[in-house]
Amino acid sequence: MTMQIAIGLYEGFAALDAIGPYQVLTSLPGAEVLFCAERTGIVADEDRMLRVDVTRTFADTPRPDLLLVPGGLNTRLLAKDGVPIVEWIKAAHPHTTYTTSVCTGALLLGAAGLLRGLPATTHWLAYDHLRAFGAEPTEQRVVIQGKIATAAGVSAGIDLALTLAAEIAGADVAQAIQLGIEYDPQPPFDTGAPSKAPAPIRELVTAVMRDAESTLLAEAT
Amino acid sequence: MTMQIAIGLYEGFAALDAIGPYQVLTSLPGAEVLFCAERTGIVADEDRMLRVDVTRTFADTPRPDLLLVPGGLNTRLLAKDGVPIVEWIKAAHPHTTYTTSVCTGALLLGAAGLLRGLPATTHWLAYDHLRAFGAEPTEQRVVIQGKIATAAGVSAGIDLALTLAAEIAGADVAQAIQLGIEYDPQPPFDTGAPSKAPAPIRELVTAVMRDAESTLLAEAT
Repeated sequence: MTMQIAIGLYEGFAALDAIGPYQVLTSLPGAEVLFCAERTGIVADEDRMLRVDVTRTFADTPRPDLLLVPGGLNTRLLAKDGVPIVEWIKAAHPHTTYTTSVCTGALLLGAAGLLRGLPATTHWLAYDHLRAFGAEPTEQRVVIQGKIATAAGVSAGIDLALTLAAEIAGADVAQAIQLGIEYDPQPPFDTGAPSKAPAPIRELVTAVMRDAESTLLAEAT
Repeated sequence: MTMQIAIGLYEGFAALDAIGPYQVLTSLPGAEVLFCAERTGIVADEDRMLRVDVTRTFADTPRPDLLLVPGGLNTRLLAKDGVPIVEWIKAAHPHTTYTTSVCTGALLLGAAGLLRGLPATTHWLAYDHLRAFGAEPTEQRVVIQGKIATAAGVSAGIDLALTLAAEIAGADVAQAIQLGIEYDPQPPFDTGAPSKAPAPIRELVTAVMRDAESTLLAEAT
C-alpha cells in the first residue's frame, strides 16, 4: 500500500522547509512524495533562484495521507480564508493521517482553523502571528498534537520528518534513514535557537526579518 | 561586490545536498546563488519528484567564486574525464575562491583531479570510491584543505555552508544565518554516523546502497 505524501508549494516558499522533509520522507518504504501547488508550472522559492516545476495541482491531490506545508515570508499574506493553499488544507485535513507544517507553514494551518487551543510551533520570530490563530506557541522543536505536527524554523523540518518516519514505520526505519542522510549534525556554533544566541545576533536577525515583513506588507497594499 | 555561488546540478542529484547549502548561502550578504547544469531546462533529483528548472548552463557560468557540487548515486557514473560537470569543475577551479562538494559530490572533485593526496570526506559508504581518486578519506564532517572543502553525507552540506559563511563573512554573520534558519538540531536518534549507529542499522543501509549501486551499474552497461 502506498502512502501519499503531498508537499504543498506556493510562490515564495522557503526551500529547505520543503526539501529537508522531502529528502527524509522519500526514503520511507511505500511512500510516494509529491509536490503540488495551485497551478502546474514553475513555483519559485523565497530567494527566487530555485524554480520548481510542479506537475500536480491541489485539485489533483485532494486526499494525501500526509500533508506538509513549508513556511516562507509570504505566509503573512496567504494565511487567510479563500487562499488556495488554505482551502486545500481545510478540505484535505479531515481525511489525512498527518497534517504538518515547517516554520511559518504553521500560519497556513492556523488560517485553516486547525490550531485553535492547541500547542504548536513555528519560526521563533512568528510566535505572535501563530497566537493570532488561537494556537499556543511553544519553543519545542517539533510539536505533535494528535495528527497535527508542527516544526520550528526552516531546518527543523528534518527533525520533524524523522520523528514522523519513526511513528509511521518504526525506530529502525527512521534510524536507517537518518544514517542514510548521515544526519549527525555538527553546527559550527551553538547559537541556533533564540535562547542560545547572543542578544546582538538575535536583534540583528529580528531587525532583518521585521524589515522584510514591512516591505512585503507595503508592497502588498 | 557580488560573490557568485554556483551549484552545479545533474540528473539524479540528491535534493538536500544542494538545498541545504543553498538555503544558508542565499543569506550571505552580497552573494548571488544560482543553479547551473549542462543544459537549461528540467533537472530531476535522485528521487525524480523534485524537478528543478535550470536557467543557466555550465558554459554560462565559467567563473564562479564558490563552486559547489551535490552528491547522488549517479556520481558513480559521472565521475570521469569528459563528463560535462567534471570538465566544468576542472576549468573553473583554478579561478575559484572555494571549490566544494557535499556527499558523493566529492567523487566529481576527485575525477577533476582536485583531491590527489588530500584529506577529504564524502558519504560514509563512498570512502573507497573517494580513495580511488587518490584522496585520503576522513570521518570528519567538514574537511577544509586550502580552498577545497568537502562535506560528509547529504545533511552535512548545512554544516559545510555555515562553516564557509563564517570564513567568508565572519562569525557574527554565520551565527545570524544559523539563527535565521533556527539550526539547533535535535535529531530523534543519536545514530546519524556509522560509528554511532547499531550494527544492524548500518548493515541495512549498506545493503540498500550496494543494491542501488549494482542496479545502477547493471542498467548503465
